Amino acid sequence: MTPISTLGEFGLIERIKNKFKTTHNQVIKGIGDDAAVVPIGNGLVQVYTTDLLAEGVHFDLSYAPLRHLGYKAVAVNLSDIFAMNAVPFGITVSIAFSNRFTVEAIDELYEGIKLACERYHVDLLGGDTTSSRQGLVISVTAFGQAKEEEIVYRSGAQPNDLICVSGDAGAAYAGLLVLEREKNSFVNNPELQPDLSDYDYVVARQLKPEPRGDIIQELREMGVRPSAMIDVSDGIASELHHICHQSKVGALIYANKLNLDYQTLKVAEEFQIGATTFALNGGEDYELMFTLPLKDYDKVKSSGNFHIIGKITPDEKQIQILLDTGGIADVEAQGWDHFRGENG
Amino acid sequence: MTPISTLGEFGLIERIKNKFKTTHNQVIKGIGDDAAVVPIGNGLVQVYTTDLLAEGVHFDLSYAPLRHLGYKAVAVNLSDIFAMNAVPFGITVSIAFSNRFTVEAIDELYEGIKLACERYHVDLLGGDTTSSRQGLVISVTAFGQAKEEEIVYRSGAQPNDLICVSGDAGAAYAGLLVLEREKNSFVNNPELQPDLSDYDYVVARQLKPEPRGDIIQELREMGVRPSAMIDVSDGIASELHHICHQSKVGALIYANKLNLDYQTLKVAEEFQIGATTFALNGGEDYELMFTLPLKDYDKVKSSGNFHIIGKITPDEKQIQILLDTGGIADVEAQGWDHFRGENG
Repeated sequence: MTPISTLGEFGLIERIKNKFKTTHNQVIKGIGDDAAVVPIGNGLVQVYTTDLLAEGVHFDLSYAPLRHLGYKAVAVNLSDIFAMNAVPFGITVSIAFSNRFTVEAIDELYEGIKLACERYHVDLLGGDTTSSRQGLVISVTAFGQAKEEEIVYRSGAQPNDLICVSGDAGAAYAGLLVLEREKNSFVNNPELQPDLSDYDYVVARQLKPEPRGDIIQELREMGVRPSAMIDVSDGIASELHHICHQSKVGALIYANKLNLDYQTLKVAEEFQIGATTFALNGGEDYELMFTLPLKDYDKVKSSGNFHIIGKITPDEKQIQILLDTGGIADVEAQGWDHFRGENG
Repeated sequence: MTPISTLGEFGLIERIKNKFKTTHNQVIKGIGDDAAVVPIGNGLVQVYTTDLLAEGVHFDLSYAPLRHLGYKAVAVNLSDIFAMNAVPFGITVSIAFSNRFTVEAIDELYEGIKLACERYHVDLLGGDTTSSRQGLVISVTAFGQAKEEEIVYRSGAQPNDLICVSGDAGAAYAGLLVLEREKNSFVNNPELQPDLSDYDYVVARQLKPEPRGDIIQELREMGVRPSAMIDVSDGIASELHHICHQSKVGALIYANKLNLDYQTLKVAEEFQIGATTFALNGGEDYELMFTLPLKDYDKVKSSGNFHIIGKITPDEKQIQILLDTGGIADVEAQGWDHFRGENG
């Protein structure tokens, strides 16, 4: 009997993927990217993705309001649709919850789901509601559409391509650390009132992430199409490994170009974690990482919404970072592995 | 604070449906049928459905083999696609499981998923695997396609239509009762070896249901299109209420025409439950119930795969059964309500 921890999440996904190699229908892309791609005629495709959030693993209701949780459950799925350079139009939502949840609690959860649907113009197409023996589980599946030639995979990066990341890095993880610290303070001294005002930005990034549909739009307006793209759910390091592995290339990124918010830096300082580690390995930012042909540099260099953090290199085995000290280090793909109990 | 039990599952779904009335995209049918329907151009539509199975609520691993469970999780979703008169082509599968599950156990689950995919020619398009604090949760979303004019809703039944049901009724519930009895015998006397050979059919119906894609095919070959259709997941009574409510009609069914297998009747006898109750309220058969215009009677009367059990009547308030004793009774929509802790 082999414990799952010997495989890890990525090993398990690889194992499942190998089991389902042959397809019965016309499928352009199955398991192994942010979303699956199926042709629907007229040069159009639909894309499909799914993510499940489990209480005690992905969220803690002692500080995550149900409304934000509903919003986040939708947001993380839409992020995968955008990462294919597609436009989401619908979701299904299944929830399982124990009898400690009231009608008012479930209403709050669906208010958050509704807010996300309205903000991103997607429709709730169906779902399932059931009881569970313990805790809350939310399973969302999202559907998007695009022209086939618009779809961007993880596998298209070429040597000399620019590596870009939207927004700032590590903020959601900073928010998580602050929330966990406040929770522990409260457990030790229940009369303490939490004051999160100095951390409002990073806490919001953790509790209510916004998927970057605006970036997809901006790139289209710039007349630019990424050669590869992925959403940053497990940290820049882990996503960079996915792109390099699937594109059979290497990468060099510049520590100096990693964009961290002031509040994130403050939290990194308080927790005595280096800013670079924070930016590379902090998960749940739901930003987009993408590569662009060097020829697009002039078109994109002045965007305030994403930053060039490095370049693609030819050697698949070298995924490196040029440190501020001048040295070069390997970028390790730590990521979030719930099966190993690691964080960040 | 209002407990969910005051609403029940159907009340909760109605509440969610009302919250999401306005749509942002072109949606032919959202929440409220077996699957949602979205146009994809050229007169074609895609249909979407999702179902979540939770350990301790929908299955008991002390008698449900993981391979069968994987198969069933796919089957119950495909059943919803067939109930729209559509052809399934893909699924996504998310699972959350505690650390008591080994690699071998997860392999078994995916073997069952694969068997169902092969049997019904659908592709696993993606998924999510994560840990849970306790137990196993399986969330499947299924996708199908059809011509828009082929789609059959719950709402199309007309007075004088024939009411048909495929296969036999109540067998899955009979299987559940037998399995629960054996489990209790084992708890009381662990040296007892279960002998299920007299109940093999009903046990198989419970553990490994087959969605009725063959019926969809047969109706097409007969040149017949149902006016309304639903899959029988909660029992004939409950599904009949859905069709009548959404079609604004009533129904009269004949107890004598309810088709029960010999093994089901034997279990009903052993548990001292009337055969009619068993057929009307036993859930999880995953057969199809559909209505057909009276003019199709000659085309369908000799099918061995489905039976005419009654007719649609004009009065929405009358959903009745003509009993073998000659009396008429109201058909109550009991169904399976996990929130109320009722079974069948």
